Amino acid sequence: MSFNRKKIAVIGSGFTGATTAFLLAQKELGDVVLVDIPQMENPTKGKALDMAEAGPVQGFDASVIGTSNYEDIKGADLVIVTAGIARKPGMSRDDLVNTNAGIMKAVGEQIKTYAPNSTLLVLSNPVDAMTYTLFKTTGFPKNRVIGQSGVLDTARFRTFVAMELNMSVKDVTGFVLGGHGDTMVPLVRYSYAGGIPLETLIPKERLDEIVDRTRNGGAEIVNLLGNGSAYYAPAASLVEMAEAILKDQKRIIPSIAYLEGEYGYNDLYLGVPTLLGKDGIEKVFELELTNEEKAQLDKSADAVRSVMDVLKAN
Amino acid sequence: MSFNRKKIAVIGSGFTGATTAFLLAQKELGDVVLVDIPQMENPTKGKALDMAEAGPVQGFDASVIGTSNYEDIKGADLVIVTAGIARKPGMSRDDLVNTNAGIMKAVGEQIKTYAPNSTLLVLSNPVDAMTYTLFKTTGFPKNRVIGQSGVLDTARFRTFVAMELNMSVKDVTGFVLGGHGDTMVPLVRYSYAGGIPLETLIPKERLDEIVDRTRNGGAEIVNLLGNGSAYYAPAASLVEMAEAILKDQKRIIPSIAYLEGEYGYNDLYLGVPTLLGKDGIEKVFELELTNEEKAQLDKSADAVRSVMDVLKAN
Amino acid sequence: MSFNRKKIAVIGSGFTGATTAFLLAQKELGDVVLVDIPQMENPTKGKALDMAEAGPVQGFDASVIGTSNYEDIKGADLVIVTAGIARKPGMSRDDLVNTNAGIMKAVGEQIKTYAPNSTLLVLSNPVDAMTYTLFKTTGFPKNRVIGQSGVLDTARFRTFVAMELNMSVKDVTGFVLGGHGDTMVPLVRYSYAGGIPLETLIPKERLDEIVDRTRNGGAEIVNLLGNGSAYYAPAASLVEMAEAILKDQKRIIPSIAYLEGEYGYNDLYLGVPTLLGKDGIEKVFELELTNEEKAQLDKSADAVRSVMDVLKAN
Amino acid sequence: MSFNRKKIAVIGSGFTGATTAFLLAQKELGDVVLVDIPQMENPTKGKALDMAEAGPVQGFDASVIGTSNYEDIKGADLVIVTAGIARKPGMSRDDLVNTNAGIMKAVGEQIKTYAPNSTLLVLSNPVDAMTYTLFKTTGFPKNRVIGQSGVLDTARFRTFVAMELNMSVKDVTGFVLGGHGDTMVPLVRYSYAGGIPLETLIPKERLDEIVDRTRNGGAEIVNLLGNGSAYYAPAASLVEMAEAILKDQKRIIPSIAYLEGEYGYNDLYLGVPTLLGKDGIEKVFELELTNEEKAQLDKSADAVRSVMDVLKAN
Repeated sequence: MSFNRKKIAVIGSGFTGATTAFLLAQKELGDVVLVDIPQMENPTKGKALDMAEAGPVQGFDASVIGTSNYEDIKGADLVIVTAGIARKPGMSRDDLVNTNAGIMKAVGEQIKTYAPNSTLLVLSNPVDAMTYTLFKTTGFPKNRVIGQSGVLDTARFRTFVAMELNMSVKDVTGFVLGGHGDTMVPLVRYSYAGGIPLETLIPKERLDEIVDRTRNGGAEIVNLLGNGSAYYAPAASLVEMAEAILKDQKRIIPSIAYLEGEYGYNDLYLGVPTLLGKDGIEKVFELELTNEEKAQLDKSADAVRSVMDVLKAN
Repeated sequence: MSFNRKKIAVIGSGFTGATTAFLLAQKELGDVVLVDIPQMENPTKGKALDMAEAGPVQGFDASVIGTSNYEDIKGADLVIVTAGIARKPGMSRDDLVNTNAGIMKAVGEQIKTYAPNSTLLVLSNPVDAMTYTLFKTTGFPKNRVIGQSGVLDTARFRTFVAMELNMSVKDVTGFVLGGHGDTMVPLVRYSYAGGIPLETLIPKERLDEIVDRTRNGGAEIVNLLGNGSAYYAPAASLVEMAEAILKDQKRIIPSIAYLEGEYGYNDLYLGVPTLLGKDGIEKVFELELTNEEKAQLDKSADAVRSVMDVLKAN
Repeated sequence: MSFNRKKIAVIGSGFTGATTAFLLAQKELGDVVLVDIPQMENPTKGKALDMAEAGPVQGFDASVIGTSNYEDIKGADLVIVTAGIARKPGMSRDDLVNTNAGIMKAVGEQIKTYAPNSTLLVLSNPVDAMTYTLFKTTGFPKNRVIGQSGVLDTARFRTFVAMELNMSVKDVTGFVLGGHGDTMVPLVRYSYAGGIPLETLIPKERLDEIVDRTRNGGAEIVNLLGNGSAYYAPAASLVEMAEAILKDQKRIIPSIAYLEGEYGYNDLYLGVPTLLGKDGIEKVFELELTNEEKAQLDKSADAVRSVMDVLKAN
Repeated sequence: MSFNRKKIAVIGSGFTGATTAFLLAQKELGDVVLVDIPQMENPTKGKALDMAEAGPVQGFDASVIGTSNYEDIKGADLVIVTAGIARKPGMSRDDLVNTNAGIMKAVGEQIKTYAPNSTLLVLSNPVDAMTYTLFKTTGFPKNRVIGQSGVLDTARFRTFVAMELNMSVKDVTGFVLGGHGDTMVPLVRYSYAGGIPLETLIPKERLDEIVDRTRNGGAEIVNLLGNGSAYYAPAASLVEMAEAILKDQKRIIPSIAYLEGEYGYNDLYLGVPTLLGKDGIEKVFELELTNEEKAQLDKSADAVRSVMDVLKAN
């Protein structure tokens, strides 16, 4: 089936990439091309076909194809990058960074060649540095190279708050700045349940525990799975951002954006509130921070920079 | 979060079981309990939590829990059984049948104890025989023990037809009788595109090829994946049947039903068109078959019986 | 078609009642019974049938029936009251109040007889007083007699803010206390765009204008239509509340609730944030108010009381 | 709010036009411009604003504007024409035809001027002749001028069949050729429930009654309403066709298409099965008809021609 629709490439057909492709198809956001390395070509084709076969049952028309040929992403409007290896026991952080940066460079060259007008959404780890690498490799303007972390972090925060209050997640909002994980800066005073500040609904100690659990939300899943990491919520987060861009929704969504002076940082990718629309990041919102929050954000920026130093050392 | 909703247990947290749980949560069809053996308890909990964390992003309230304790399925309205091993290289068919029948018996005892009023949907392989085993073990009435195969087979058929005609899957219908896989009996004369008989739209030889591809649809995915079998379309198929039952939709859907005289068979689970509603299988539709179709269906019934003979020999 | 689903009665088949019935059917929230007076029986049946005929096209199974016989609401889980006349030129407010209160009493008696276990959602005007009248007439517990106004008021506020910021309505939240319309108390400091306080995004004077436009949101539509009042957004608001209750969503939604001491008021129906679930209003949230906000809320409460004095005078 | 989306104009803001605009917005199929004559400008603006205000509650971003200025439809991708008067007591059929043809000509000139690349969907009555008038006035290619009748007729047929069998409408299909209403040619042998031919499920006399009720489906609603005609199902039908075109779904849907030799007719708009995609009608399917069916279709064609003779006489 060939349709006159948007074209979306998903690089990496692991659990997150495959789940992302499936959720994109379910929403009929465009024709999906799932790409992996030649050794994974057949499994990638198999997953794509299996997804397409779910279409008649779930009521969506999915053009999902699996491939290892980057020519197939030609003309893509959006490219979602989930490729990269996970940290293995005994592997140093620097090894991880360098290996994945190498993958990003290879992927970035292909994107530059075959989808020069696309917008990039990046999930690969460590996400701030990998987004930076793709920004440099492709030479795309900053608004079109975007990292994901805040949608996922707030989704976890919202889940834990809803569990605590025994209420719907639909009315809980959260707000997170900075890097993914440990150095995440959750702005609890900008987080609400049905518009009511959370601080008036949950005792401070419990809120602190929820914030801690959110910071360690990725590790919590890794520890439970034993082998692998989260993919349902990360994929859903990528798809939320993809939808905002493809449908030009002008949504305010936290993104990892390239900063040039905002919040006092320069030449750095960091998680901040952004307006997402057809041009990718159409605006970065600068919030007034308390001294404590700014100090936390500085720490988060330092952590990102220390990863980037590894990259520059090579 | 605890809601006053239907309760659905999914037995087996492998790819199909997990994907089924996720699709059920997405549709907010009920509170989902994902069950696996004690050794898999943590990964099962991890997957369930990851799904719940996708809820705020996708806009659904999911109560999905992972467990190895069957007490947690207490009061379930619907139990979906995906447990069982896959056939491994060198394993005889009889070994597969006997191993999975043992698993069904163990699972069936737990269901009988904790969810005595539930309706069962079975996917475990070989599905006709495993559905029979659960029917015997639980002692539930026949309308409440149902196997899946026809929804998946027709989904594949519809996908291939839509690809052939370069049109939407939404308007293609298919019709399949009999066992899953090789001995499937596709009724092409009851299959249409936009209401137009397929035989007038696609040359006979191409239709025959599409039928063949459908028969081997499961194997096609297995061969591509290299390691594992399809799960997106099978999970979607289970969820379609689950929705019809939980929402009492009175839909005509092919199911593996216990036959007592219909189509001339007795004491046999076989794929036939059924009406699915709150009481499970509320009706079996008997179609007039041509001699050729009846002969094919007899062959399919024989294949199912030969598997059941393995069971009875033990 | 008869399904084993929730049963919802909608009293009044005018534009709002009919649109409400249609949106309920679209969401398959239950079997819908649309009720009007005997003189309107045929048009009511016509609208119901027209809605049902949209089902195959939009993909929903709708059991919508039109009737003037209250026996048909027997066993309803939820009753939505939209009946009542609109204020006509030359009609005094007191005449309006008394006429509609009479209608509420008649409707309330029927509900008491045929749907004694239902939860009531009221839209009829003036809504605070009409909700009170139904509370008294039916003798139902306070949690099961609920008025609508805040969902609609915040929907309008959110629409105007999204227009102002040229962004998606999805990320704008609003918060309103008190009576519907003129004396509405919008809590701008509890209103956000993507979690960012509106006061930091929109200059104060523009925000004041938006608040004013919201207060007059109903009148704006009335003036444009020339003949009649808004019905799309009011119907959507009722359906949001209905869904929260029928699906036990535990959502924080502003409702017109019966107060016994909350916010310092007694024996009064007033708009406040509530938790909606299977028991109707499961909780009233008390926010800390500034002196100014409390003064505005007092004014709103006075306005509601003055309407209720009209009722008591009779 | 301005989005980079498809643009859809709906001409005529009566019940059908307004409901169509609302359903388009709900599905976020594009930015909607609702157009009516200058005397109706304010009510049209009021309805559009009311719809937009339902967006935050129902979760859609709607840009719906009301206008009487055709410049506002500039660049529309799709124009849906619902304008025209209804037949009033004492009015001859010829008067109706001529009045509405005059309206079509005026509307067509505006479309030609401001939306020269748009595709047209026509509902105005009598629909075959009005579609022809717009085809001639705009000079657009035949694939881009399309009338609606078969989606609505089959929707009614499916509803009545589902009621008869007490089953879901989701699995019932219907098939209708020819003109709208009296001379409609329902192909019962191409109509199924869950793929099972209806003739094997419903006795012939009952099927005949259902066919008759379908033929008179519009009149049934008109008689019940007393004042006005159906709008929910007609609007849903237009939106189904609009979605197929805007999303390039390649669906097989019955349309009123311009025939040049198909089924033996020339220079005639008649209801036939078509493939709808981005180019409008991408294909007309010719079915083999029985002699009886062909005779009925001839009668239907004659009826359409007799209306067109009225037009040509002027």
